[in-house]
Amino acid sequence: MLKKKDIKIYPVEGIKLASICAGMYKKRRYDLSLVQLCAGSNISGVFTKNKAKAAPVIVTEKHIKNKGIKYLVINAGNANAGTGSQGAKDIIKYCKKLSDVTSCAFEDILIFSTGVIGERIKVKNIINAIPKLVDNLKNNNWLNFSKSILTTDTCTKIVSKKIKINNEMIVITGVAKGSGMIMPNMATMLSFVATNLKITKNELDKMLIKLTEKSYNMITVDGDTSTNDSSILISTRKSKISYSQLSAKEKNKFNDCIQSLYENLAKKIIKDAEGATKFVTINIKKAKSQNIGKNVGMSIANSPLVKTALFAEDPNWGRILSAIGNANIDKNDLANIEIYIGKLLVYKNNQLYKKYSEITAARYLKNKNIDLNIFLNNGKHDITVWTSDLSHQYIKINAEYRT
Amino acid sequence: MLKKKDIKIYPVEGIKLASICAGMYKKRRYDLSLVQLCAGSNISGVFTKNKAKAAPVIVTEKHIKNKGIKYLVINAGNANAGTGSQGAKDIIKYCKKLSDVTSCAFEDILIFSTGVIGERIKVKNIINAIPKLVDNLKNNNWLNFSKSILTTDTCTKIVSKKIKINNEMIVITGVAKGSGMIMPNMATMLSFVATNLKITKNELDKMLIKLTEKSYNMITVDGDTSTNDSSILISTRKSKISYSQLSAKEKNKFNDCIQSLYENLAKKIIKDAEGATKFVTINIKKAKSQNIGKNVGMSIANSPLVKTALFAEDPNWGRILSAIGNANIDKNDLANIEIYIGKLLVYKNNQLYKKYSEITAARYLKNKNIDLNIFLNNGKHDITVWTSDLSHQYIKINAEYRT
Repeated sequence: MLKKKDIKIYPVEGIKLASICAGMYKKRRYDLSLVQLCAGSNISGVFTKNKAKAAPVIVTEKHIKNKGIKYLVINAGNANAGTGSQGAKDIIKYCKKLSDVTSCAFEDILIFSTGVIGERIKVKNIINAIPKLVDNLKNNNWLNFSKSILTTDTCTKIVSKKIKINNEMIVITGVAKGSGMIMPNMATMLSFVATNLKITKNELDKMLIKLTEKSYNMITVDGDTSTNDSSILISTRKSKISYSQLSAKEKNKFNDCIQSLYENLAKKIIKDAEGATKFVTINIKKAKSQNIGKNVGMSIANSPLVKTALFAEDPNWGRILSAIGNANIDKNDLANIEIYIGKLLVYKNNQLYKKYSEITAARYLKNKNIDLNIFLNNGKHDITVWTSDLSHQYIKINAEYRT
Repeated sequence: MLKKKDIKIYPVEGIKLASICAGMYKKRRYDLSLVQLCAGSNISGVFTKNKAKAAPVIVTEKHIKNKGIKYLVINAGNANAGTGSQGAKDIIKYCKKLSDVTSCAFEDILIFSTGVIGERIKVKNIINAIPKLVDNLKNNNWLNFSKSILTTDTCTKIVSKKIKINNEMIVITGVAKGSGMIMPNMATMLSFVATNLKITKNELDKMLIKLTEKSYNMITVDGDTSTNDSSILISTRKSKISYSQLSAKEKNKFNDCIQSLYENLAKKIIKDAEGATKFVTINIKKAKSQNIGKNVGMSIANSPLVKTALFAEDPNWGRILSAIGNANIDKNDLANIEIYIGKLLVYKNNQLYKKYSEITAARYLKNKNIDLNIFLNNGKHDITVWTSDLSHQYIKINAEYRT
């Protein structure tokens, strides 16, 4: 578990948060949060590509197009997915309460849910909690927020950064949840990141797509995508300086900082993956394109055979080769590949490398953090994918989840 | 294990087979076979789409285009994959021996291998065995052949049928191996089927594609495709009658018979799937197209979440819904879906069916054979996909395979 004292969390001016135990779970824990955005904030979102979208995703994808979003309501314990028109009606009911208490419009509210699929959400619990949530809004409530969105997660995922640009303190703070990338019933991926830097809506949209592509879209535990995945980026515009006015160097500084924050959150999800005993970094080097690189990386990362071999600490490189061959690539993309386990060259010139030592490879695989380095050697694109191994514990967690 | 007395195996006139223990494994067992085709035979093949094709697949895909294939050499214990130019040279070496003994050309030989990836094949063992294999060729050696191609399989897979058409006895006999559909290191899928019915090369090619599509292409254990998968169909043309001369009704009779033989072989692979405790039939009904139906079926069949829930006998239908939503389909394809577990209606009108009883569903899932019936209700195409569950045993087998 994350220790509170270990990390410093910087509030983002313009964001207020409140979390509460609303009884969404039998156990008492934070399970409902309200986030308030100051006037003038910009907000962008990317959402699950699963066609069986949950009711809150449908509402939020619609509302986020509006200017002037004022509130985010986020609950754990119930995904409000597979609930049809009833699910939509339930959202309207508790949003009405929030409208009544705060005088905001339904269209100014975004909704996020994660938890069990197919059961009705406890509308009354949310309605009853809303006045207290509104009363409790404070700008230093990020840690409780990060706790309130967890499901099967075993630890909170929060990253906060401060950088000085033009003598102005820029803050970026974000939380995420997810413990399997997927897990429709529980481990939906949710991410909320905010900064005080002034960023236009248009810039923010582009930025979020890029940030998500190189973080959450590069992790996989079991290849499934949930009905509720959402990634949200907010600019409160409370700083004096604007992203668009920054020099190229300053832009890079900010971009690097926020990219590494997203990467950190994504890695925290993989490190907390269900049943994981290994944290696996797959570097695809010198690919013809980003897409090919990602496809090869994901084919390895999602192969149950590769994942069980890693769990067993067995350098079964034939499975890596076969996973590469199963990627959506051209046969010629395979001609010059080199496979490394860690720094150890395994496969080159279409065959096992002569000096390869299985004993050395097996010893390396005893590490908790494992790197697989694949050189495609027919382009200039490098990409990195993160994943976990496939263990007995994964089966246990997923087989016994509802028992 | 299959009991010999349980099934009747009909030899196919024009096919002779011999199997031997060539020491490809440490353990003594059949591990090398030779199949001889009579002059005038036609032969068709479909092969793995994995780009990291093994040396024998590369050779066989080239040779099968020639007329007058005379021999098939098939070994277990070594896949001759990831072996580069050395792998190709090794094949030439042992084919040369077969050429010397039988006066056939290299181009008249097809090669099949299954087993460990990346290690050199034991060329000398094969060379030494060839004279004895040639001496032992007999038309009633199908059962030994079916044994000689096994790897992690726990039982032989053989189906033999006899039907009377126009007062002529038509025989179809086939063997398969595979215990995971995939498993590059061991459980490559191989299939060899032969009939005495006269079928032209052109008809045979079309027939095999269709047969494979509705059998081996509809099964999945873990979504991987091996470097060595091959499916071979032979017409020895020894019967007096030709497929092209049959009436539409007679053609149907033959097609139904051979299709059911392929389906049987495919199901035997799933029933022998690594660690399987359930045999799962996924029927996708009323799909807009075959492709959409297959995609939905495969998305369910390959979801680790669905598979672990089935292992746990947990009617976690939200995972089925989410897997459908992850298929490569249009959002509108989801509007009218109905999900049944067995005959039990679970989900309709975008929500849980009111009369659904979780207790009844859980009781049904205690069966070994489980049907999931998904109505897409926007077309007229029905397809069926077969799969297994994902158990602790799967992890155990795959994690400990090389230890």
